[in-house]
Amino acid sequence: MKIISEAKSHGGCQGVYSTTSEACGGDMTFAVFRPIVAKEQLCPVVWFLSGLTCTHANVMDKGEYRRMAAELGLIIVCPDTSPRGDHVPDEPDNWQFGKGAGFYLDATQAPWSRHYRMETHILDELPALVAAHFAADMGRQGVMGHSMGGHGALTFALKHPDRFKSCSAFAPIVQPSTADWSRPALEKYLGADESGWRRHDATLLIEDGARFPEFLVDQGTADGFLDAGLRPWLLEEACQKADIGLTLRMQEGYDHSYHFISTFMDDHLAWHAERLG
Amino acid sequence: MKIISEAKSHGGCQGVYSTTSEACGGDMTFAVFRPIVAKEQLCPVVWFLSGLTCTHANVMDKGEYRRMAAELGLIIVCPDTSPRGDHVPDEPDNWQFGKGAGFYLDATQAPWSRHYRMETHILDELPALVAAHFAADMGRQGVMGHSMGGHGALTFALKHPDRFKSCSAFAPIVQPSTADWSRPALEKYLGADESGWRRHDATLLIEDGARFPEFLVDQGTADGFLDAGLRPWLLEEACQKADIGLTLRMQEGYDHSYHFISTFMDDHLAWHAERLG
Repeated sequence: MKIISEAKSHGGCQGVYSTTSEACGGDMTFAVFRPIVAKEQLCPVVWFLSGLTCTHANVMDKGEYRRMAAELGLIIVCPDTSPRGDHVPDEPDNWQFGKGAGFYLDATQAPWSRHYRMETHILDELPALVAAHFAADMGRQGVMGHSMGGHGALTFALKHPDRFKSCSAFAPIVQPSTADWSRPALEKYLGADESGWRRHDATLLIEDGARFPEFLVDQGTADGFLDAGLRPWLLEEACQKADIGLTLRMQEGYDHSYHFISTFMDDHLAWHAERLG
Repeated sequence: MKIISEAKSHGGCQGVYSTTSEACGGDMTFAVFRPIVAKEQLCPVVWFLSGLTCTHANVMDKGEYRRMAAELGLIIVCPDTSPRGDHVPDEPDNWQFGKGAGFYLDATQAPWSRHYRMETHILDELPALVAAHFAADMGRQGVMGHSMGGHGALTFALKHPDRFKSCSAFAPIVQPSTADWSRPALEKYLGADESGWRRHDATLLIEDGARFPEFLVDQGTADGFLDAGLRPWLLEEACQKADIGLTLRMQEGYDHSYHFISTFMDDHLAWHAERLG
């Protein structure tokens, strides 16, 4: 693990690091905030998975998580959203596929399968690094995310309820297998056989029996992607049928931006801290 | 005034606007946050003046002022740091002069004097716009800033103690007329006669009799510009001699970045709110 930068913030430390990823076939960057209390004790870890076009930096710059994470004693880890580098195949004019749009899965189709393996990177590689280099209590992990990253958070939690003790999302893509902006990506990464898509779709995972105790979801009513891309009511239906707890808050007048995320970040971190002990 | 963007944030609204500036001879962009309470009553206004290389966007993205400004009912205005546009003369390879480095003065020397008139832009043009378009109580204004913008805040407050009721700074350039990174700019903007520089130097303004009730200054001890560029002890000496109140807090381990600013932003906003009533 290489240190790219570290700066004192809210008594703790906001760092940016890189690692050579076997899964992604190249260097990957990620951000970690550790609170001051991590000098004395192991702290719970909350993962923040970002949305389309983002790197680790967007939420680090605009998410406003540090004050509350410092207060609650949480380590916050912010991975990138795709493999990076000139050697990585891409569709440069398509913001919904390729770089910045890894969709938190391991691609199975060439040429994407060589590098686009964000699920392994985030679920295997980064936890090993975080456990080795920070005062992280890996028995107390939560996961949250925004938009495409909300999809990542929900599906990771549903697939690994033993690992993640808490899950929340801002404006998540709850059913990527049917949304216009994600269907083409799933097809290119995973192939035309839609049965392979089901484990990367929160609503279909629930339909197939995956369970998680409860979710917190915030969704802005002025979000331009609400009706075509996000559709939180599909998650609501799935959770109701499966008896999964869902706190869905429709936030009047908020859009899809970090102004929305930062407004409700404190609530989400408190939600995680309460469940992570 | 043209609306570039508006987004709901912390119950209020973060906007970005532009105006055709007579002083700067072109379009100028600025950001305004208005708290929800501004729908019902006039609110005090706090100006945030940014540092070298910044636009209005840096503090808007990374300053983390909205949560507390919403709570305290403050309007926050964030101007740009220089004139902009292809028609504006510049030294593109020099980050300490020209675009992004207006130093909050009106240049007197050609070719800079045509556009580099940030003092008039911020003290005359923008207040008229803010008063006309927002629920701003212009009788209750405070000013704060970072680095070059700390210099701007201190000098504006000292020159206009009737207008500004509160002033604070993060890592301000307290004596730009002798600091390596600002002397060349003052010479190019104002000419070789240093007597004309005195009204753009907080310590020399105080020496010449300018007064302000009290300042709050935070300065990181790990700030790489501390010894050569910032030197808060010079302000401390000047304030002591002139019997001006100064709360100077040396913040252990903090650098010059927005990680430092955002950590102490709440304190500064509370300082202003207390004095603005």
